[in-house]
Amino acid sequence: MPTTTPPAAAAAVVAQTAPLRITVWNEYRHEKTDPAAAAIYPHGIHAALADALAQIPAAVVRTATLDEPEHGLTQDVLDATDVLVWWGHAAHREVADAVVLRAQKRVLEGMGFIALHSAHHSKLFKTLMGANCSLKWREANDKERLWVVNPAHPIAAGLPEHFELEREEMYGEPFTIPEPDNVVFISWFTGGEVFRSGATWQRGNGRIFYFRPGHETYPTYHDANVRRVLANAAQWVRPTVRIPDAAPNTPPLEPLPLSA
Amino acid sequence: MPTTTPPAAAAAVVAQTAPLRITVWNEYRHEKTDPAAAAIYPHGIHAALADALAQIPAAVVRTATLDEPEHGLTQDVLDATDVLVWWGHAAHREVADAVVLRAQKRVLEGMGFIALHSAHHSKLFKTLMGANCSLKWREANDKERLWVVNPAHPIAAGLPEHFELEREEMYGEPFTIPEPDNVVFISWFTGGEVFRSGATWQRGNGRIFYFRPGHETYPTYHDANVRRVLANAAQWVRPTVRIPDAAPNTPPLEPLPLSA
Amino acid sequence: MPTTTPPAAAAAVVAQTAPLRITVWNEYRHEKTDPAAAAIYPHGIHAALADALAQIPAAVVRTATLDEPEHGLTQDVLDATDVLVWWGHAAHREVADAVVLRAQKRVLEGMGFIALHSAHHSKLFKTLMGANCSLKWREANDKERLWVVNPAHPIAAGLPEHFELEREEMYGEPFTIPEPDNVVFISWFTGGEVFRSGATWQRGNGRIFYFRPGHETYPTYHDANVRRVLANAAQWVRPTVRIPDAAPNTPPLEPLPLSA
Amino acid sequence: MPTTTPPAAAAAVVAQTAPLRITVWNEYRHEKTDPAAAAIYPHGIHAALADALAQIPAAVVRTATLDEPEHGLTQDVLDATDVLVWWGHAAHREVADAVVLRAQKRVLEGMGFIALHSAHHSKLFKTLMGANCSLKWREANDKERLWVVNPAHPIAAGLPEHFELEREEMYGEPFTIPEPDNVVFISWFTGGEVFRSGATWQRGNGRIFYFRPGHETYPTYHDANVRRVLANAAQWVRPTVRIPDAAPNTPPLEPLPLSA
Repeated sequence: MPTTTPPAAAAAVVAQTAPLRITVWNEYRHEKTDPAAAAIYPHGIHAALADALAQIPAAVVRTATLDEPEHGLTQDVLDATDVLVWWGHAAHREVADAVVLRAQKRVLEGMGFIALHSAHHSKLFKTLMGANCSLKWREANDKERLWVVNPAHPIAAGLPEHFELEREEMYGEPFTIPEPDNVVFISWFTGGEVFRSGATWQRGNGRIFYFRPGHETYPTYHDANVRRVLANAAQWVRPTVRIPDAAPNTPPLEPLPLSA
Repeated sequence: MPTTTPPAAAAAVVAQTAPLRITVWNEYRHEKTDPAAAAIYPHGIHAALADALAQIPAAVVRTATLDEPEHGLTQDVLDATDVLVWWGHAAHREVADAVVLRAQKRVLEGMGFIALHSAHHSKLFKTLMGANCSLKWREANDKERLWVVNPAHPIAAGLPEHFELEREEMYGEPFTIPEPDNVVFISWFTGGEVFRSGATWQRGNGRIFYFRPGHETYPTYHDANVRRVLANAAQWVRPTVRIPDAAPNTPPLEPLPLSA
Repeated sequence: MPTTTPPAAAAAVVAQTAPLRITVWNEYRHEKTDPAAAAIYPHGIHAALADALAQIPAAVVRTATLDEPEHGLTQDVLDATDVLVWWGHAAHREVADAVVLRAQKRVLEGMGFIALHSAHHSKLFKTLMGANCSLKWREANDKERLWVVNPAHPIAAGLPEHFELEREEMYGEPFTIPEPDNVVFISWFTGGEVFRSGATWQRGNGRIFYFRPGHETYPTYHDANVRRVLANAAQWVRPTVRIPDAAPNTPPLEPLPLSA
Repeated sequence: MPTTTPPAAAAAVVAQTAPLRITVWNEYRHEKTDPAAAAIYPHGIHAALADALAQIPAAVVRTATLDEPEHGLTQDVLDATDVLVWWGHAAHREVADAVVLRAQKRVLEGMGFIALHSAHHSKLFKTLMGANCSLKWREANDKERLWVVNPAHPIAAGLPEHFELEREEMYGEPFTIPEPDNVVFISWFTGGEVFRSGATWQRGNGRIFYFRPGHETYPTYHDANVRRVLANAAQWVRPTVRIPDAAPNTPPLEPLPLSA
């Protein structure tokens, strides 16, 4: 009698030494209509993010945007994606539900997911959290200071104890997320608010990281510390497995009680 | 200058001494077509659940079923519900998305939610978890022994260290749920499997409890220990607040930096 | 064959309607030597804490201090204590290890424990956390604003979204505690720091709450919001059970495999 | 004005590509007095563990035992240790408190720690957990089946969905540990018990893994799946940083309020 099942999980192991295939998704609307955003991100926020992520050894970075067919997230693209990075703001509702469910399915199978800034209200992040993920906000020049709460977390590797962004939009608590598995950063704002600005969760087999900074009219994604966070995070959420959903009817491994 | 905000949360406090308004929702199909189920639950599983919950002091229990208009879960009913108990199995897909979203909204505001047995695959539970919540299963007479893993948890109050159900369907790990806030019960099955059979989460302001036992052809909800779990759980998930979702644009509490 | 164990846990259930017996422990040194502390707490910090806790219905509050025999925490006192509240600062090392272990044992059995302010470095809190629980600090007038991160938590009941203490000592992150079960409050300080100022854990069968504010030269424990937190917390950490430690050699519940 | 602190955390980063220095600690008493243990582990349990861990690329494994001076865990040894593996059973009380505190200090700085089998009651594990970590047990031939609860966890990499140990001692719930950060394995025993047999925590900057199997009279540490768990775990708990404990008095980063 075989004493172990076929190595189902083993078969799905994702090698940690393979190229890390990252897809950066951007709404890409502000940069086409708002001169302030265009001045900072002339090729789109996705280009700046891709540039930051390309510093990862063995990274293979592509981009996708809202106005491409299927928002650039076809099944083929998602099948070839290890880590999905998401920036969206004004057009969350335009993202097709079918694409959201397709991406959620890949996260549950094992794909990593990084939600940036106003992606707290993206359909995909809310779907994975099961909650509203709302917060206070104020679109005004403020200074944000991010404190590293868990310096041992790989996402904090190489960072100082705290770092500052001289100008950012404010996000404040309460942030109606599920209690995170780990809080990595907490932000201080001049205006008097605090915010859990870096937090992690697991859903299915996929790791998720939310990172707060990144308003489109500030040069946040050109900041060296922010770029380091992005590179660290993409490596930390990389998949360990790819396991399709299954709810199998299974035979017993031991004799069952005699029926009455 | 006022130094605190108006007591928004305070205004939404739900008195813990008020009547506890419980709505038991049941798919109510098996009991009408399967003689084995009908023999055990002649008035429906919801009637047995309601009977167990009526033992709670100050409980006011109503029931609702799939085939009622709006599945019996109109906005008025949900507005007057503190705790929603859910049993579903064969007809998850027939539950209207609008009702699922309405119920999710109430959980996020503060309503308690108890998902029973095959409700692990109900739309509402999956929506709140953000995951597939799949598992192994075997519809065969098995013996289930539930071990109390956290005897200090209020849901375990008054229970023995373990208790048994002589006949139950098997559910086995891996159970693809988000890591629970707390695991209260782990089950042992004769056939060789284990299962996290009682677990808690918070979503928004609402508490959630999943409890495994309850196949429709076994007298599980007549069992004294199971009935105690149900009564304990309904009290533990009762709301503390009712807070509508909001993402307010808020003025600063401290002077902002001078603009550049 | 009996199918359940004797109701060991049940036997240990602590009635939630019984009087709530609270012991407030205070180092009680600053108030005897520092005029600034004595002016604010003429009868000792313990007297102010006891006064705040006496507002709980059915509370029976006693106090104990470092310089009493056995620091006022004899086995008899601890046996008759449901919730232990701890304020200490300059004399942590003078607390006898035997008393610390005695109190830890009671927490593990089920007693609630509230550690206040500089009790983050008390022997008892560090012993229960298994960690250093260190932090940044600055003894200078600062303004602290506490944000309610989880408004549904019973410890936050009746509080505004945030409240302020016009003068407090600063504590800043990183706070080297184990990841809390729940973070209830996060503080903002004028000087630029943040802090997880209200957090919960469970150890054994006992609930633990750490609450940051309370420097001896500021009138923090006379503040209405702080007093509400204290009263809420004492009720939330109240025991559900009292279960002595045991590691029993137990007979099998099912037939074992035949020996080779 | 500098806007960031000196990169304290960065300075302490531990390169993930350096050799992985593992110290296997063993009580090493049973193997010298019990022929059944000696037959299975003729060179001691530590030798079998070291052999399993030596399969890790770049691992440098040393061993230490109770009866060596300072139990083989001098400050120099611990300073040169990235991961400490611990097997102890009958002589927990003989381990000097000074060595326990020295090892705890290293874990809090960042060293990984793996506690095996009856090390659940070792001074070091209990000190780090802050709890009794007690459990049920039965020294009798039983079959243990370990289910992988979180197949995405790196500690489960390459394992089948479940694996069996034909003969093992039984450990049963309740296991009075703090709620783990993650449960990786849950065990089923023929005798009717369940157990959280693989679980993780973080204390300070160090990662901790507890793994249940390993009674001295069974060939558990020669099992291929168990050896894979050990190798996976040692890599997962490897340090990311080394940060000494500090509680600094720090100057403000922003102007303080004017004193009254």
